[in-house]
Amino acid sequence: MKFVDLNCDMGESFGAYTLGRDAEILEHVTSANIACGFHAGDAGTMRKTVKLALEKGVAIGAHPGLQDLIGFGRRRMDITPQEAYDMVVYQIGALSGFVRAEGAVMQHVKAHGELYNMAAGNPGLAEAIAEAVYSVDPALILFGLAGSELVKAGEKLGLRTASEVFSDRTYQSDGSLTSRRQPDAMIESDEESAGQVIRMVNEGKVLSRQGSDVAIQADTVCIHGDGAHALEFAQQINASLKQAGITVQAIGKSLSRQS
Amino acid sequence: MKFVDLNCDMGESFGAYTLGRDAEILEHVTSANIACGFHAGDAGTMRKTVKLALEKGVAIGAHPGLQDLIGFGRRRMDITPQEAYDMVVYQIGALSGFVRAEGAVMQHVKAHGELYNMAAGNPGLAEAIAEAVYSVDPALILFGLAGSELVKAGEKLGLRTASEVFSDRTYQSDGSLTSRRQPDAMIESDEESAGQVIRMVNEGKVLSRQGSDVAIQADTVCIHGDGAHALEFAQQINASLKQAGITVQAIGKSLSRQS
Amino acid sequence: MKFVDLNCDMGESFGAYTLGRDAEILEHVTSANIACGFHAGDAGTMRKTVKLALEKGVAIGAHPGLQDLIGFGRRRMDITPQEAYDMVVYQIGALSGFVRAEGAVMQHVKAHGELYNMAAGNPGLAEAIAEAVYSVDPALILFGLAGSELVKAGEKLGLRTASEVFSDRTYQSDGSLTSRRQPDAMIESDEESAGQVIRMVNEGKVLSRQGSDVAIQADTVCIHGDGAHALEFAQQINASLKQAGITVQAIGKSLSRQS
Amino acid sequence: MKFVDLNCDMGESFGAYTLGRDAEILEHVTSANIACGFHAGDAGTMRKTVKLALEKGVAIGAHPGLQDLIGFGRRRMDITPQEAYDMVVYQIGALSGFVRAEGAVMQHVKAHGELYNMAAGNPGLAEAIAEAVYSVDPALILFGLAGSELVKAGEKLGLRTASEVFSDRTYQSDGSLTSRRQPDAMIESDEESAGQVIRMVNEGKVLSRQGSDVAIQADTVCIHGDGAHALEFAQQINASLKQAGITVQAIGKSLSRQS
Repeated sequence: MKFVDLNCDMGESFGAYTLGRDAEILEHVTSANIACGFHAGDAGTMRKTVKLALEKGVAIGAHPGLQDLIGFGRRRMDITPQEAYDMVVYQIGALSGFVRAEGAVMQHVKAHGELYNMAAGNPGLAEAIAEAVYSVDPALILFGLAGSELVKAGEKLGLRTASEVFSDRTYQSDGSLTSRRQPDAMIESDEESAGQVIRMVNEGKVLSRQGSDVAIQADTVCIHGDGAHALEFAQQINASLKQAGITVQAIGKSLSRQS
Repeated sequence: MKFVDLNCDMGESFGAYTLGRDAEILEHVTSANIACGFHAGDAGTMRKTVKLALEKGVAIGAHPGLQDLIGFGRRRMDITPQEAYDMVVYQIGALSGFVRAEGAVMQHVKAHGELYNMAAGNPGLAEAIAEAVYSVDPALILFGLAGSELVKAGEKLGLRTASEVFSDRTYQSDGSLTSRRQPDAMIESDEESAGQVIRMVNEGKVLSRQGSDVAIQADTVCIHGDGAHALEFAQQINASLKQAGITVQAIGKSLSRQS
Repeated sequence: MKFVDLNCDMGESFGAYTLGRDAEILEHVTSANIACGFHAGDAGTMRKTVKLALEKGVAIGAHPGLQDLIGFGRRRMDITPQEAYDMVVYQIGALSGFVRAEGAVMQHVKAHGELYNMAAGNPGLAEAIAEAVYSVDPALILFGLAGSELVKAGEKLGLRTASEVFSDRTYQSDGSLTSRRQPDAMIESDEESAGQVIRMVNEGKVLSRQGSDVAIQADTVCIHGDGAHALEFAQQINASLKQAGITVQAIGKSLSRQS
Repeated sequence: MKFVDLNCDMGESFGAYTLGRDAEILEHVTSANIACGFHAGDAGTMRKTVKLALEKGVAIGAHPGLQDLIGFGRRRMDITPQEAYDMVVYQIGALSGFVRAEGAVMQHVKAHGELYNMAAGNPGLAEAIAEAVYSVDPALILFGLAGSELVKAGEKLGLRTASEVFSDRTYQSDGSLTSRRQPDAMIESDEESAGQVIRMVNEGKVLSRQGSDVAIQADTVCIHGDGAHALEFAQQINASLKQAGITVQAIGKSLSRQS
């Protein structure tokens, strides 16, 4: 039996500003990455999003980002590993307040935007983030790009990790994502998207742009919550996976707890 | 045997800005109220302050404040009880990340500045704050002005509470603090300050400005960390209390854990 | 010949967060109040909104607010007159950078949300805000609630002022707005709204909830930019005013320049 | 007759946080770079610092920085030229509010920290910043590292520029500063510092670490305002320059106004 998790960013509203269709998307995903107030989200939004995820039976994760609200955490910032550690501990902690207040348990941590990207390739930042997660709670599952430094750093510490794949992005022969600056970075066809994910889960392989098969670990699939198409796509990929006989469930159910 | 706790605000530095003489003050107090990034403090400062308090054997508390860095949380803001709840859950959570990362336990929560003042007299805010503390962890001790709505709200919920008194402020015959706008609000003499605290702890009474004795519960004494005189004063009040045969220790040691 | 100005809040988007239908609303108003980055708006949004207003031939004003992005400047904060002065000078200045960069001239200043409300009834804050406007540029027109302390403070300094009226709010016999906590605070009917404004402009009177006529100065009408109905309403009130023979134009065209 | 300007960063306090010894340093410099609220400074501090500079007869400049208060604008952020343009227009505008309120005129603009560093080597950012300065007021003088892209971009637009040199930093044979990561980046001796500046002003040359003389334009010297030694150093360099027969005056007095 094959399993896969579908995760989506959530709780990105801020004060008077509303973003995303969280309630609807939550119907089709199994893990929610909840913004923690640095790149998006605020205390009230966090409380509401935690409750919403619990109501829908979706597993909860912290989604820490760079402290750049105006740039939505998407602008590269030169931070030290110590700063990365501190911002991740703070944000996991902040979300955990709401999770504990609801009597629930946090499942995972997924870094946001440019923090995620930097941690994929920078061992120092990767180790600092993994260390932050481990220090707050070693039972948390660390999400990271499949094959990334972040996943490696988590494994080295003894954290359970979830290798993340993208259904709408193409891959290079070294297993990395094709840069968005390349014309063929995105997969436009929903059918092709679903097919890529199904093959990654079932066979552990993805066909690279160069035409060769690449081995890839697919524990969780990133579902984008924004864009007009987001809801429809979440629904469709969920359905396609089930139709292919793959069990769609939160990663915490698939991974055994560490001893 | 009489006990009393000495608490002081800590960790109020921010980025390049340094505030307070935390390391020195920690030698003379038993509970540290650590700023959580809203009115002061940042993630790095929180980590360092938690470590410092642990090294000095001082009990750790969250010090949540209004989200007004420029006003240092001292400007009244019209917030709803729901907003108070959310900001307190968030900030306790954020600090708890660092506390857990160090393998320690948080002892208490003390609201900062105007949030503390508003909660003293506003039952709706008091209940929201007490509820926030209780929801995150019912073992936390809630600090509040002696006789305040906040202490009442905490007791009603079944939280352990610590009634806070001020050594350098005078009291009215109804047990409230003399407003700072009054000329006789402050006690300038260190000797008189110490005397007032000793009597509050030993006899549960304070002499009001009106000349009458007022009953007062003195579980913890507020030590101001700023001002040129702060360090000397912390040292002196600690010594005076001990000399009067009062045990100065963290409130968590004096209060039995709730069942 | 009777004149009136229609003003609307604009440029309230922030980073990744979009708010309002500025481009469409600008077709129907004559003065734009542009957020300056404290309660809403950011540098990029300010640049774009200034350009948009100029393209549509709409007069530009600064819309300074309280430094409370998360509360959208709608939560009362205890600020001193000095703080009010400082925040208004800063925000007018910031917007003026973009106005000058486009080779244009700022017409007016309208305080936002709770800053506007506080300035209506608090002479100290009103004087500080008027002083701020006057200090930066005495040719600016100060907007304020008709009959408010802010309008009085502006006139006392020799600023040109614009008395603002609301088409969708009812009035009390003392000329104040009916509190939103009252059931009859809002006028739901568009026809009634238009009728109230037309009478205020033509006759200088409004029928109070108490049934008596009250004298009112109506230089500019506040058009709300949010809500599903906003665009339609802006269009309709503009058309109704014109149909009643009233010239709808930016206040700066109606008021003679000060000598 | 040789002239040189001494400039120093000012107004970097924030709310309850005090930084720098502005009043004392202002006695020894001729141009003040005033923080504008992004990397440091707030509206009240800006007002006070503008007044202070005017009292001391020191020329006023805007000191725009990255929107990263917690990192003091010293962490590299990937911003677009458009974002750089917007943040510089906004910050010059904000400071100009206070300058105009005091009936004064702004002399110059100097980018802060990492914005300054990035603009030195990145033509796109340099052009955007120069364009921002020019758009708000073409009479402003643009400060930039001697030989940098920023100075070139300013000159291309027709702005007056001031080439900045450092007294306490060593130079490479290509005219760039020795990286702080190199052991010989700093000049420790005050005498050597003064000597380097005097030669740069008098001969337009600096001796590089490689032993060769490099041509350098020295219009203004950067005086660091922080550090225990700052005040003494400002005093000393000022005295040494005067003793060497160099006139120390604000750059605006040396450069003729553009036609």
